[in-house]
Amino acid sequence: MLHIEFITDLGARVIVDVDSADKLLDVQRQYGRLGWTSGEIPSGGYQFPHDNEPDFDWSLIGARRWTSPDGEELVIHRGHAYRRRELEAVDSRKMKLPAAVKYSRGAKSTDPEQVREKSDGEFEYVTLAIFRGGKRQERYAQPGQGRPATGPAPRPAPARAPQAAAPPAGPAPAQRTAVLEAPPEDETPF
Amino acid sequence: MLHIEFITDLGARVIVDVDSADKLLDVQRQYGRLGWTSGEIPSGGYQFPHDNEPDFDWSLIGARRWTSPDGEELVIHRGHAYRRRELEAVDSRKMKLPAAVKYSRGAKSTDPEQVREKSDGEFEYVTLAIFRGGKRQERYAQPGQGRPATGPAPRPAPARAPQAAAPPAGPAPAQRTAVLEAPPEDETPF
Amino acid sequence: MLHIEFITDLGARVIVDVDSADKLLDVQRQYGRLGWTSGEIPSGGYQFPHDNEPDFDWSLIGARRWTSPDGEELVIHRGHAYRRRELEAVDSRKMKLPAAVKYSRGAKSTDPEQVREKSDGEFEYVTLAIFRGGKRQERYAQPGQGRPATGPAPRPAPARAPQAAAPPAGPAPAQRTAVLEAPPEDETPF
Amino acid sequence: MLHIEFITDLGARVIVDVDSADKLLDVQRQYGRLGWTSGEIPSGGYQFPHDNEPDFDWSLIGARRWTSPDGEELVIHRGHAYRRRELEAVDSRKMKLPAAVKYSRGAKSTDPEQVREKSDGEFEYVTLAIFRGGKRQERYAQPGQGRPATGPAPRPAPARAPQAAAPPAGPAPAQRTAVLEAPPEDETPF
Amino acid sequence: MLHIEFITDLGARVIVDVDSADKLLDVQRQYGRLGWTSGEIPSGGYQFPHDNEPDFDWSLIGARRWTSPDGEELVIHRGHAYRRRELEAVDSRKMKLPAAVKYSRGAKSTDPEQVREKSDGEFEYVTLAIFRGGKRQERYAQPGQGRPATGPAPRPAPARAPQAAAPPAGPAPAQRTAVLEAPPEDETPF
Repeated sequence: MLHIEFITDLGARVIVDVDSADKLLDVQRQYGRLGWTSGEIPSGGYQFPHDNEPDFDWSLIGARRWTSPDGEELVIHRGHAYRRRELEAVDSRKMKLPAAVKYSRGAKSTDPEQVREKSDGEFEYVTLAIFRGGKRQERYAQPGQGRPATGPAPRPAPARAPQAAAPPAGPAPAQRTAVLEAPPEDETPF
Repeated sequence: MLHIEFITDLGARVIVDVDSADKLLDVQRQYGRLGWTSGEIPSGGYQFPHDNEPDFDWSLIGARRWTSPDGEELVIHRGHAYRRRELEAVDSRKMKLPAAVKYSRGAKSTDPEQVREKSDGEFEYVTLAIFRGGKRQERYAQPGQGRPATGPAPRPAPARAPQAAAPPAGPAPAQRTAVLEAPPEDETPF
Repeated sequence: MLHIEFITDLGARVIVDVDSADKLLDVQRQYGRLGWTSGEIPSGGYQFPHDNEPDFDWSLIGARRWTSPDGEELVIHRGHAYRRRELEAVDSRKMKLPAAVKYSRGAKSTDPEQVREKSDGEFEYVTLAIFRGGKRQERYAQPGQGRPATGPAPRPAPARAPQAAAPPAGPAPAQRTAVLEAPPEDETPF
Repeated sequence: MLHIEFITDLGARVIVDVDSADKLLDVQRQYGRLGWTSGEIPSGGYQFPHDNEPDFDWSLIGARRWTSPDGEELVIHRGHAYRRRELEAVDSRKMKLPAAVKYSRGAKSTDPEQVREKSDGEFEYVTLAIFRGGKRQERYAQPGQGRPATGPAPRPAPARAPQAAAPPAGPAPAQRTAVLEAPPEDETPF
Repeated sequence: MLHIEFITDLGARVIVDVDSADKLLDVQRQYGRLGWTSGEIPSGGYQFPHDNEPDFDWSLIGARRWTSPDGEELVIHRGHAYRRRELEAVDSRKMKLPAAVKYSRGAKSTDPEQVREKSDGEFEYVTLAIFRGGKRQERYAQPGQGRPATGPAPRPAPARAPQAAAPPAGPAPAQRTAVLEAPPEDETPF
């Protein structure tokens, strides 16, 4: 028997019993669709293979895709909106890096020190996930979908808009409100 | 089977077994009425839909409404008193934000760094919850009440004064004393 | 079924199963008499009603009363000695506060930042508990005692000297040694 | 039923079920002999009665005695070597302190702030345990030994050299390597 | 019954039940091969006997060997790549230290303060493990292999390249992508 610790969409600490290790990802998907998360974002962000990005099942980490009214593709995780960015491959004498896709947001005053990464100047940001290199893992894909084209080619549009999906049984995600959250420069005055 | 971790009104760490996921909110309400809380206040405060504010069931997060002798509406959570504030909608070129209701308090010297938000000047505050945008969730409402009017219209008075409610079976909330807690500028000398 | 997490008198992390919620305080008393504690001291100290102070059952939070050889009344909690202080009621234009009894000690170099409260000048202190306002809760009283006189009147002497009580079954409290702990200004040189 | 949380000698987080409270110390001894520890060192170090020092059962806190090739008596705990020091009684107008035995080590750059204690000048140290005052507790003694002489008199040699004892069944302590750990001034260059 | 707490390769917090203490290392190996880890890296890094280094079973701590395209031997742990370094024995008047093998990496901006060790100048690094002194423990060796030559003699090549091993049943390690992670000086611009 296994037991997985979640933070629910309401911020409660809940442990769910799981019959066997091979059911674990199913349970993470089931509760992740409600916005429940387990553990912290790893320092520097989750690392996934580049070719998992197009149809990545964000429910695995309690997140979901959302397209803003301005048509921007965002990922919502624990009430924060992360922007998608494509990083080009680097091939200099000093370093070699394959192309990557990164989901990050500007840091807020309430973010703990160790999740903030420094960029040029004073700007600080927080990374949710980076998709770079590696070999595609089918277990990370949205279930019930054909394998999308991979590689550095243009990213296929997501097969469905997650926010239009039927609401899951049980409590609906609280962070639905989060999509209206202001970007960091919009800090609401007290 | 699920298990939910609480901090009791006495500050003890207690885990309660829950038969199934659909009983979870009931258990949170039951123990929340005693002032038990689960997990931390999310950074920046709990986020709920705007239209849940009038009849929000504060027991879900271990809090309760309280009207001070001066007639001010407060919410008590873990011995702290939070004030209700209405934030007007913002519609400038730089940002667009719908109207919101925010429950916050001045920061105290013993508050950890990451919950303090800066306002104008040196003043720091702590947010318990913000109600903004989103779609009303019936599961957040006080049970056994009709649906109140919603929208930016005048907030209906709470249907009952929680502090006048019959005490719950079992231990009574310790933070009943909290309502007499001094505001931050009244820091008791040693 | 419930489960309560303790730090034992030896500093070990132990979880104890509890049959039902109404047995919880009994279990806290039983292990609290051994010096076991559950959870952290709340920021700013435990808050209890003023009228619970005379016969408060300190075992509920793993503490115990102790009278020093100099006749000073102290409370011992996790190896630290807290002094009893009576705070007069405040009734100024700026604030109104009822009389209170506070148990606090000077801060030590190894106390984490967030428990230290600043007083006049450089002096920092740590509060264990404050008894102020509120309504007496019988469940906080020492079992098997008549109700003592309450209010701002002179505090009745404790009905028994806890340190003279028969040792509990099982392991005796380690912090018995704590009563000899030096006050903060006596920091032992290395 | 109780459950005790350990950090194993390999640094893993493991919970062990214990049938009843009176078996708890036995379980702590059993796993402590393997170098498993439960909970953190209390701020300022473990506090034990002075007269428990000669035959203290260090396995209770996952530590063990070790005599260095230079003949120095050390205690090894989680890979760190602590030196034994005798502190004389203090009897000045400012403070009164009975004699004590303290086990401490120099602080390292990776020690968290709250365990470091300041001494004269810039030197910082970390205390594992202090034996001072109090009344001897038989339950802290090594099992199967006669009661040693106590008091400020010369400390009897330990009845057995723990490092010469037969290895416990099951995994042997990893920190056996720790005895070769360099003192703080010997920080290995990168 | 025992229970071991893991962080999975996906960062989730999962507890696995273990029948008895002698099965514990098997369970750590089984899940460690998937990149699951239990507990934190001890401050200063894991300490193992010197003679365990050649055939150390890195799955015990959720890590694995990897040879970079440049032929450098690395160890991958939670998405970070650690370099192998041989430290010569030190035999000066000030200190005596046997030869050691150390696995470390440069510190990143998101590493918490307490894992960073200072080297010459401003450079900071993080140690995963150090193999020094002590007596070889067979339980730390890769199962199913003959005992390799030990001592300061040339290190035998690993008997198999772990990354070429058949993938374990169940989820494949996420950190497979980690091997492409940039060294610290290659911090990806935002």
